[in-house]
Amino acid sequence: MVHFLRGYFPILDWLGSYSKPQLGGDINAGIVTAIMLIPQSMAYSMLAGLPPEVGLYSSVLPLMLYAMFGSSRVLAVGPVALVSLLVASTLNSMSNILTPDQLAGTAGLLALMVGVICVVMGLLRMGFIINFISHHVISGFTSAAALIIALSQLKHLLGVDIARTHNIFTIIETAINKIPVANTVSMIIGVAAIATLYFFKSYLGGFLANTNLNATLRETVTKTGPLVVVVISILAVFGLALNGASGVKIVGVIPEGFPPFTFPDVTMDLLKILFPSAILISFVGFVESVSVAKVLASRRRQKILPDQELVGLGMANIGAAVSGGYPVTGGFSRSSVNFQAGANTPLASIITAVLVGVTVVFLTPLFHYLPKTVLAAIIMVAVLALIDFKTLKSAWNYSKADAFSLLSTFAAVLSMGVEAGLAIGVAISIALYLWHVSHPHVAVLGRMAGTEHFRNFQRHEVQMSKTVAAVRIDESLMFANATWLEDWSLSFVVDHPDSEHLVINCAGINFIDGSALEVLERLNEELEHAGVKLHLAEVKGPVMDRLIHIGFIKHLGADRIHLSTHDAMTKLGCPV
Amino acid sequence: MVHFLRGYFPILDWLGSYSKPQLGGDINAGIVTAIMLIPQSMAYSMLAGLPPEVGLYSSVLPLMLYAMFGSSRVLAVGPVALVSLLVASTLNSMSNILTPDQLAGTAGLLALMVGVICVVMGLLRMGFIINFISHHVISGFTSAAALIIALSQLKHLLGVDIARTHNIFTIIETAINKIPVANTVSMIIGVAAIATLYFFKSYLGGFLANTNLNATLRETVTKTGPLVVVVISILAVFGLALNGASGVKIVGVIPEGFPPFTFPDVTMDLLKILFPSAILISFVGFVESVSVAKVLASRRRQKILPDQELVGLGMANIGAAVSGGYPVTGGFSRSSVNFQAGANTPLASIITAVLVGVTVVFLTPLFHYLPKTVLAAIIMVAVLALIDFKTLKSAWNYSKADAFSLLSTFAAVLSMGVEAGLAIGVAISIALYLWHVSHPHVAVLGRMAGTEHFRNFQRHEVQMSKTVAAVRIDESLMFANATWLEDWSLSFVVDHPDSEHLVINCAGINFIDGSALEVLERLNEELEHAGVKLHLAEVKGPVMDRLIHIGFIKHLGADRIHLSTHDAMTKLGCPV
Repeated sequence: MVHFLRGYFPILDWLGSYSKPQLGGDINAGIVTAIMLIPQSMAYSMLAGLPPEVGLYSSVLPLMLYAMFGSSRVLAVGPVALVSLLVASTLNSMSNILTPDQLAGTAGLLALMVGVICVVMGLLRMGFIINFISHHVISGFTSAAALIIALSQLKHLLGVDIARTHNIFTIIETAINKIPVANTVSMIIGVAAIATLYFFKSYLGGFLANTNLNATLRETVTKTGPLVVVVISILAVFGLALNGASGVKIVGVIPEGFPPFTFPDVTMDLLKILFPSAILISFVGFVESVSVAKVLASRRRQKILPDQELVGLGMANIGAAVSGGYPVTGGFSRSSVNFQAGANTPLASIITAVLVGVTVVFLTPLFHYLPKTVLAAIIMVAVLALIDFKTLKSAWNYSKADAFSLLSTFAAVLSMGVEAGLAIGVAISIALYLWHVSHPHVAVLGRMAGTEHFRNFQRHEVQMSKTVAAVRIDESLMFANATWLEDWSLSFVVDHPDSEHLVINCAGINFIDGSALEVLERLNEELEHAGVKLHLAEVKGPVMDRLIHIGFIKHLGADRIHLSTHDAMTKLGCPV
Repeated sequence: MVHFLRGYFPILDWLGSYSKPQLGGDINAGIVTAIMLIPQSMAYSMLAGLPPEVGLYSSVLPLMLYAMFGSSRVLAVGPVALVSLLVASTLNSMSNILTPDQLAGTAGLLALMVGVICVVMGLLRMGFIINFISHHVISGFTSAAALIIALSQLKHLLGVDIARTHNIFTIIETAINKIPVANTVSMIIGVAAIATLYFFKSYLGGFLANTNLNATLRETVTKTGPLVVVVISILAVFGLALNGASGVKIVGVIPEGFPPFTFPDVTMDLLKILFPSAILISFVGFVESVSVAKVLASRRRQKILPDQELVGLGMANIGAAVSGGYPVTGGFSRSSVNFQAGANTPLASIITAVLVGVTVVFLTPLFHYLPKTVLAAIIMVAVLALIDFKTLKSAWNYSKADAFSLLSTFAAVLSMGVEAGLAIGVAISIALYLWHVSHPHVAVLGRMAGTEHFRNFQRHEVQMSKTVAAVRIDESLMFANATWLEDWSLSFVVDHPDSEHLVINCAGINFIDGSALEVLERLNEELEHAGVKLHLAEVKGPVMDRLIHIGFIKHLGADRIHLSTHDAMTKLGCPV
């Protein structure tokens, strides 16, 4: 029973065995992550088209629920850029049927749907579905999304209006044309914030290495970039009243304390409209979250259970929905920071949640003068790091097909939007794989003189027979290559009019599906008509079991099955 | 040059070497096929919702063009049931924007689009795309479509009106409710026609076997069923004036001669609306055509070139478009009849086309009194033979996944219509395949005592080491199982805390895609962090070439690559 409960409540696993030495790391990580999360959650919420407090609300209860149900010990859950972009795209597409007041409620409903979808998929053990999205599709998708996100922030950075559009060239062109009318102060603050953030991110560590601060403290200081730009910019705007005549746009009034415990408004029509987006957000959120969780868990030889992760993320999203938040997931950069700052258990996340909670209750008035251009700077610096040339470069070197699926996903997302782009990328990657499988590598074999070995006649000096042909197919046989098998074999015997026997070496055939089996049966008859006898050699155990079960071996004749190509050739009159 | 031309004009191949002995068979087959085609083409045209003469027009020029461009010597091109159903479904969905007069023009435009799509796909060598539709999806699709077609003819058979609907239960219920108000004479003629057709199809051959007719003539006589019911029913309706007071619906006026050479009306909007249907008709038509062409070609050790088939079918459809017809393809039953009746070359099809042409020019008035119920009977008998239980039964025995994709396609076509149903079937079959690939068979290996052989410890009595683990993965590594590989391996080392080396036997790995390669690199690092060294054994030549090229082998270290599991285990301190 306890074991069963632990399966569904991973918290029982770590809380029962909690030891004092773990506490220091957890407290430090909890604080560092909170410092990073507070400005980021407001920024990402703005990216999603929502008021900044929605991001803060999404950073309390979801973290606590994930700590109870998630299987990762160090994953930092909360608002992330990619999911925020998807939420923005969903809300934007509904802007004609929603009033601004309804936006936050709809985002909450979306979180609820994402939560339910994740939990149901987790309980049904459907975590394997994400395997269908290849790494290259994710890479192309993420790069394109990062570019879209960064460009979408130009309007805040410049303090101008830029109409929303899919077309990135239009956005860039409009932004350039609007530079002359940009709000100069906003732009200066934004650019300075970007420079500061880059300095903290890329150079501060090097400077601090020469000081006598200890390593943990140095690491913590480099993560305070967003907090520093937030504090300084608030002081500057407040002190110089830049929101007045200078026209710097600020965050404005953030309500103090949590919103009343709410349940999103649900109508059947709205559910139908939101469903595709909810599915997409669930997938993308799960993919991002589980990737980082696995990388970090492996460092400490811990396990991630993908199906339990779905439950954990699902509960976190349900938590976001009932506490006024919007969809969340495990973020890459914050989880890495959490891990590096010493998080040992999900207690670190609980500490983060408490700190964000305290901020929500007592400190929101401090953010009144926070300029939006700084939030835009935080988003831009965070997402531009996601643009991934490395994967493209290695794919290009290793496999043009992978590079093609990456680039076509990238292009599809930029030209057709995030949802259609991802769908097209997945379809292309699957089609390319099936194309590969449907064109197997096949070697026509000959005997290495005087041996029992048979090799590809194109690579080796071998002896071949005019009447008995041997070929090796290096692929499992299934519907996508069943036709190929038939075409290839029939074409082969047409090109070799003297052939009387065709021996297929099955060493590379890991399984044979029903379509391929039917084709094998038909091929056997067709070859028979053409005066050629079909033989199989080196059939693998599991494949043989099924061929016997279905009666194919009996149908073909036991004398057509051979242990090895050598055996077959010897019996068919081509001995050593 | 001649060789090049022959590639694109297969007629040069057979016409140049035409010999007198081939002529007898071609003439006989040409006549028999024409006898079958004339009534069928009118019936299928009615099924498509078009006037009967459109079917006849589709049976002249298309056959001649296919004879020039097609790669099959015996394929009988013309209207077929499945494609007619798809045309009907397309036209029906547009009934709100088209007047009845525009229907035939739209069908012609559809044929033109199908023709262009097929030719372009053929020239781009994209014939492989049909491999993505598994045999089981085709089987489920065909069975469901046959059922829909047969039920759609009940209204003609009963001489009543039944509203078009997707729901087959509604159709059956309506038909049963309408039996009391059915036109009794129509119903009697229809049922008698069905009985006669079944007699010709199933029993006449047996009766004739006892006579002294020669085999070819007997075979020919059994194919005259449709012609016999057409002639008798025309005589009966004409003689007894059944189209008067008895209210039997007849074909009516069929224009004499060919329509003026027309080109379908084209507007951009119409093209956009028709495009998905044109793609679907191209695919389905190509699949049906190329399957039968291959089966028949193999009987005589001839070759079918799928890409050239696309060109041939495409030209046939363009021919249909410019001569007042609608989409055509190579039909299963008529091609078999053509083959059995002795067709040696496409000259047989040219003879068929001439006979249909003569009918169009001189004989159409004879069909004036042809009752529609007889055309319905011809359709029903033809399509009910397409309902395929055999494939379901063998799939059920061999592979539940294949049976599932067959049944779900069948159900999807019946519940959601032909287009959506086929798309869902294809998606399900691909998903099932990826699911299979994403859960590879993996064997943990141990040494057969005293030998160099390593086998699955669950199946054999073997010796295993606590610190060195060996596993064999029976699947190529690609994106759909890359995550599985990582999860499985990390989970394995967590469950085997004493393990220091993990040896992967790669004998079953036919290739490694870019996603899997990235995972392998990451897995190597993750295992390294966890204190476990990754080794590879029995890597296949082509896989090794690519791993060396990309630098993975150098990255992993040459000492981690082993010729065999035995070599690896011996080097790692587990000798015989």
